[in-house]
This record gives sequence, structure tokens and C-alpha cells, in this order.
Amino acid sequence: MDLADIGVTGLAVMGRNLARNLARHGYGVAVHNRSAGKTRALVEEFGHEGTFHPAEDLESFVASLKRPRRAIIMVKAGAGTDAVIERLAALMEPGDMIVDGGNAHFEDTRRREAALRERGIHFVGAGISGGEEGALNGPSIMPGGSRESYEALGPILEDIAAKVDGVPCATYVGPDGAGHFVKMVHNGIEYADMQLIAESYDLLRQASGLSPAELAGVFREWNAGELESYLIEITAEVLDQVDAGTGRPLVDVIVDRAEQKGTGRWTVQSALELGVPVTGIAEAVFARALSGHPEQRAAARSLAGPDEGPVAGRELVEDVRRALYASKIVAYAQGFDQMAAASREYGWDLDLGAMATIWRGGCIIRARFLDRIREAYDENRELPTLLTAPAFAGALAEAQDSWRKVVATAARIGVPTPGFSSALAYYDGLRRDRLPASLIQGLRDYFGAHTYQRVDKEGVFHTDWSGDRAEHQA
Amino acid sequence: MDLADIGVTGLAVMGRNLARNLARHGYGVAVHNRSAGKTRALVEEFGHEGTFHPAEDLESFVASLKRPRRAIIMVKAGAGTDAVIERLAALMEPGDMIVDGGNAHFEDTRRREAALRERGIHFVGAGISGGEEGALNGPSIMPGGSRESYEALGPILEDIAAKVDGVPCATYVGPDGAGHFVKMVHNGIEYADMQLIAESYDLLRQASGLSPAELAGVFREWNAGELESYLIEITAEVLDQVDAGTGRPLVDVIVDRAEQKGTGRWTVQSALELGVPVTGIAEAVFARALSGHPEQRAAARSLAGPDEGPVAGRELVEDVRRALYASKIVAYAQGFDQMAAASREYGWDLDLGAMATIWRGGCIIRARFLDRIREAYDENRELPTLLTAPAFAGALAEAQDSWRKVVATAARIGVPTPGFSSALAYYDGLRRDRLPASLIQGLRDYFGAHTYQRVDKEGVFHTDWSGDRAEHQA
Repeated sequence: MDLADIGVTGLAVMGRNLARNLARHGYGVAVHNRSAGKTRALVEEFGHEGTFHPAEDLESFVASLKRPRRAIIMVKAGAGTDAVIERLAALMEPGDMIVDGGNAHFEDTRRREAALRERGIHFVGAGISGGEEGALNGPSIMPGGSRESYEALGPILEDIAAKVDGVPCATYVGPDGAGHFVKMVHNGIEYADMQLIAESYDLLRQASGLSPAELAGVFREWNAGELESYLIEITAEVLDQVDAGTGRPLVDVIVDRAEQKGTGRWTVQSALELGVPVTGIAEAVFARALSGHPEQRAAARSLAGPDEGPVAGRELVEDVRRALYASKIVAYAQGFDQMAAASREYGWDLDLGAMATIWRGGCIIRARFLDRIREAYDENRELPTLLTAPAFAGALAEAQDSWRKVVATAARIGVPTPGFSSALAYYDGLRRDRLPASLIQGLRDYFGAHTYQRVDKEGVFHTDWSGDRAEHQA
Repeated sequence: MDLADIGVTGLAVMGRNLARNLARHGYGVAVHNRSAGKTRALVEEFGHEGTFHPAEDLESFVASLKRPRRAIIMVKAGAGTDAVIERLAALMEPGDMIVDGGNAHFEDTRRREAALRERGIHFVGAGISGGEEGALNGPSIMPGGSRESYEALGPILEDIAAKVDGVPCATYVGPDGAGHFVKMVHNGIEYADMQLIAESYDLLRQASGLSPAELAGVFREWNAGELESYLIEITAEVLDQVDAGTGRPLVDVIVDRAEQKGTGRWTVQSALELGVPVTGIAEAVFARALSGHPEQRAAARSLAGPDEGPVAGRELVEDVRRALYASKIVAYAQGFDQMAAASREYGWDLDLGAMATIWRGGCIIRARFLDRIREAYDENRELPTLLTAPAFAGALAEAQDSWRKVVATAARIGVPTPGFSSALAYYDGLRRDRLPASLIQGLRDYFGAHTYQRVDKEGVFHTDWSGDRAEHQA
């Protein structure tokens, strides 16, 4: 009997599509699911697409794999993952490989990788982005683990990944949890991106009186320029959609409560740990949280708003486009900062330009924009912030008047733009020669004797605030 | 030999001052420190203040306590705390009590309380605020644990706590980690409060050209009105301070890099877990993080700023005062929302009005303002948000024109005000009838088949975006 090149266990829609993608690329794929019905259905429906090796139980699944064995787990992230890993590992031998293709938290992946490494089994935490569609036709894949495991797995992943300009959207990310970390930040950036799009739509609708259909046209125009991206493209599609039952724009019929699955929250929690300000992602996560408190929103509807009504005509469109682009640059700069900080913290040696490269296709934030990020890191791998890369610094300089006008207008007419305004505050904060953080340090020294440093000499100082107010070196 | 009423182990400055506070109130206080030198120094220097029972080791420390024994641990929060708890617990008997007066994470306190409860020992996690000064002369104390433990401990804590209008700034908070949780949120609010003060100072200095000394006068005036608080008071003191060596305002000599110890970060991490938007605290934590990246700031100094220079005269002062007050209301509302959410999540049954009451004195955010919060919860314990309490809704309505003007001005002239602008965005978001979250839900359904709800009928729906675009009930 022929043995399979690789196996997939967990045949919900993501796992099934990934298995089909592998089979379509000529790999023999062992397939297994806890309930065997899904395995049979897959082979019945899609067996003609390639070579599947259906297995009724995990023992025969593992036995049907070529050595060293490569098994991809596609189950819902959580405690269940540990159980599946343990059952698989018990059936494997040193040199075999387990790949977790779910959305695991990178700390879990670090823990699992370390535990399996001790047993000689390779563990790869692979972020896979692109949803069902991507899993089938070419996702963006972010695998983390040992270099050795990538040698055995990488060529297959690069084969089935999306391609942009012939370059696969899969590459070696780094050791242990690096792949799931990068996937997490990808999702965090996706939150920020969507929040900025939502603010653009909202502000233009409120301030300029444009209809959803007109705004679909605006986004379509934008998609022909520097904002070109999958999310801008599908925004036009969603805004154009008319609800069949009511004849109203679908966006007016959908409940305005944005849900979330957790990776955005994880991104911000990790950024707090790493000391990296990811204000764009945080505001996006919190904006979704705010939308999900109907009782507070109902109570707050009576709060006072500004007298000023809609003020602008279509001339605000170009200002909002620039504000969106500038805010997007900030959100991505913050996300890339977070990856850089994690790389230092965990010793991952991430190649940030390569991360931009594999996000160009297959995933939700895919965009030509990522080419510019890749180029920026190609020019200077140690770039302190994306904001100062020439292409972005120039774009920000061009955008800033519009950006300021947009934030000021939104404040005046009462449209919430937490993404735009926090991005602008970050930009203005980072470029400031002196920040009022010195006052905060003074206050901390006053109430808690936390000490401060001086600009003109080395050392740590404390003022005796409750005594003679003399300064002492601590 | 007489036995001590209560014991303190860990005699760094906070522990020493707490022991002295207890002794001054007539309690016999057993004192112990890992290195006995500190114990001897305390008794030598302050023995005249009351009755101390110095102990050279933990065995004699425990032996010197009246039963049921009450021992307060005042050591640096972290792994060391577990070791001290374990050593103490081994020497104790069922019915005895260990109090952790450090800044432990509330999850650690929950874990420790549960473990000690099994052994019959009461564990109280007590947040203590007010720094060295407060520990000595009257802190704000937030004890969490069993009601039974509060009966034995509470009267002592209420004795040594700060008093406002004769009411002690200590009360029973709730079970297990509730006390440390409330202390954590207190600190998070403190971050937001200080950030808003720093933005007020910065904006008035940049936009109105006021000097630190003139701004000290402004804050002093403000402290006579509705902003009256300890932090506003000491801001005036810090801004008035002239550096002896250089003759310059001290605030210009202090390095503008704000440090942090972690409770602000914890607050935001917990809020993300609970789904409560605490944008004011998050922006404050991130603003400190931003200030602490000198290499990025150095690179970013070349980024383009606005042409517009200082625009306003002193007339902006009153606008900034109102913006500060409005933003402060938002920051507190968010913090109280977080406590309400935690109370539901952990079954703590927190009395939010009582929390406002014990923060009126002793702690860093002490202010008359907290009376207004207490009154708001007295009127309606189930208030969905502080923003809609009549006193605050009225203040916000009065402030909003100024608030909008301040955010718009800051955006235009390039002064970062992440606290002001995120608070305004939260306010405008919460009061909005419809949010663009519906577009986000549409996008999520498009790329990930995440489904959405409709405003006009029950159920969960999905549009077949890649097919005929018909809607199906999921």
C-alpha cells in the first residue's frame, strides 16, 4: 500500500479545504476526523481531486503516513488541541512532525513545542490565514518551529500557498511560537484596518451625506489607488448590497454589534506585555466591545451632541482617503513594531520584510501596500519605525493636513473616529521633541518617591517634596 | 507575655509605615523582616510610638500573635509572596488569617485564597493605596476575602485608614481577589487621570504659550472648582518647582520618559478579557510606552508637522478645563464599568458606590469628584454607565463644545491628546444610534462567513457572497 505524503486531522471546513488543496497539488493526503462521517463525505465528494487516504481512527491515520510523518491538526484552538496532540504524539516516533494549523495562542505553541522537542517530535505552529477560500485556493501560511522541520514541511506549504508575482505566501517564520505570533498580529492589524474603513464610511455618510451605494463607488475608486487591498474591495461589495426583503442597503439592516473571536484582544494583551503602543489595534478592539453593550448604548442615546450638522460635501472624500491611508500606515507600523519587540524578547530573529511578503496574498489584509513595507525593510532591516521609511514619511507629510482636518471635523460634528484620532495622536507624539511624560515623572516622584532622571546629568534623582524640596541623588 | 494584636512581616518603607500606623492607633504590632536589622531599626527609631513585638524569625513572629492570628505580608508582589505565604501558613492554625497588603495580581490572590481556604486559613488580598505617606497617616484600603475574615480584620483597617467626613476609606470589598482587583482599577484610573493632566499642561503650553509657573497658577485655580483633587493639587506644586542647579522649571529638566510598574497594563489586559472598553486607561498606558522608545522618537523627529503654530490665547484655558473634566468623567465611567463587569464575572457583588467612597481619601486619585460618583450609585445602583447619571450628563453637555474645540485644536496644531480624543470618541460612540459596526459585521460575513444578525428579525444570517448573493438563515 502507498503511504500518504502528509495527513490532516480535523475535517471541518478549514481542514477539509486544506486537505483538498494538498491533494490538488499532487500530494497523497491522509484524512481523519473524530466522527468518520466527515471523512467519508470528503472522499465521496472530492475524491476525484487527488489521492486521499481516509482513516477511521488515529492509529490507522498515523500508520498511513510516510516517514518522517507529517500530520496537520485542524481543530478548534483550545484545550482540545492538547488532547489531540497527545494522542498523535503517542503514536509517533522521534523525527515525526505535528503541525498545528489552528489559531492557537503563541504561548501555548511555545509550551507545546518545548514539550514535544524533549520527546524528539517536531512541533510546528502554523498560522493559516485566508478563511475557507484561502485554505482551498491558496492561503498565507506562517509556520513557526525548528529550521529542520521547515526543511521537511516548507516546500509543501509553499506549494499550496497563495502566490504573488510568483512568490509564495509562505516562508519560515521563526522558532516555536513565532508563526502563531505573527498570525495573531496579522489579525490585530486586520481589526485596525477594518475599524479605519468603518470610520471612513461612517464619517463620509454623516458629514457628506453620501449613500451606501455612492460610498461603494468611493471605495471602488480608492481601490484603484494606493489603498488597493482586499478589504477595500469587499467594502465596496458589501456597501453595494441591497437587502432583498426590504430594499434597503444591507448595511442598514445588519445589527451594528461587531463580534470578535479573540486574536485582536490577544494582540493588545501581548503588546502591553512587550511595552509596544498598538493604539490602532486597541481602539479597534475596544470599538467592537463598545458596540456590544446595547444597554449602555440605549441609556447613552440621550447624551448631548453638537449642534453642528453635516458640514461637508464631496470635497471631504479626498481628505478622508488620505486620513485613512495615513492611519493605516500608523496601524501597520505599530504591528510591525510589536513583531520586532517579540523577536527580541523571544529570540526569534524575525525577518519583517519577509512577513510583509507572505501577507501580500492569501490573507485578509492582502494588499499592494505590503510591497512598500517589504521594500522599506529591504532598504533598512533595522528601521526603527515604518513611519520614517522614505515612502511612508512622504505619504504622511502629504496626508497630514487632510488627516488633521478629518479628525477636527469628526470631533466637531460628533462622529466617533477613535482609529483616526489615536493614529494621529501617535504620529504627533512620536515626532515630538519633548513629551509631557516629564510631568508624569514629576508627579510619580511627588506621590510615590518613584524618582526621575535628568536631561543634563547621569543618575536617578528624587526631590524631597514633603520637606525642603531639595533634590537628592537616589 | 502579652501577645500582639496583629503582625506585619516585610518592613520596607510601606510595611514599616503601616506597622507604625497600627501602633499609633494603640494596637500591639508584631514586626518581622527577613533581615533582622530592619526590625531592630524600626523599634529603635519608632518604638516610642506604640507597642511593637519584634521577632527575629517567622516562628517567633507567629508565636507572638493573639489567636486567631492576623499577619499582614508587605513584600514585593511576585513569586516571593508565595514562599512567604507558605512559610506563614505552615506555622498557623485553622481560623488564622494571612493578609497580603502588596500589589498582587487579583488572579494570584484568587488562587491563593482558594488554596488557603482548603486548609482553613483566611486569606485576605488587601489593596493599599496612598504610598508611604498614606501607609503612615491613613491609606485607602481595599480588602478582599471572606466576610468572616473582614469581621476580625475590618475594624482595625477602618481605624488606621484615612477618613473623609468621618467615614473611613476602608470597607469590605468582596470575596477572594476583589480587593486587589479594585486596587488595580484604581491604579488604572490613576494612569488615565495623570495622562489627561499631562495633555492639559502640554496643550496649554504649546497652544497658549503659558509657562510652567503660569500653568501652576492655572491648576491651582482649577483645584478650587469641580476638578479639586490631590493630583491637580500636586501638579501645581510640580510645575512651580524650579531646578536649583539650572534655574529652569524642573519639568523641563526631567527626562520625558514615563515609567510604569504594571498595574495599568494589568487593568487593560483584564478589561480586554472582560470586553469592557477602557480606552482612557489604554491610551494612558500606551502614551507612557511611546515615551519610552527613545530610538523611535529620535528617528521620528524629522516627520512633517503642521504649519500652524500656537493659535490660542488664555481663552483656551477654560475650554481645556472642561475637556479635562469631561474626559475624566469618561475615564472613571470606564473604570467603574470594568469593576461592574468583573463583579458579574467573578460573582463579587461589588458595591460600586462604596468603592467611590473609600477612594475619597488616602489614595492617589482622592477627590471630591468621587462623592458625585457615590451619589450617582446611591441614586441608582444599577446605573448602566456613569455618563448618564444626571450630574455627569449635565456636566458633559456643558463641556462638549469646549471638548470638541480642544480636540480639534490639538489635531490642527499637532499636539498629541490621545486621552482627550479617545474619551470624546467613546462619548460620541456610546451615544450613537447606529454604529458602523454593521459594516464590520458585513465584512466579517464576506471573508469569513461569520454571519450577522438583522435589526428586523430574529436569527443568524449569511449572504452567499461568492455565489448568488442571496441571504440564508444560518
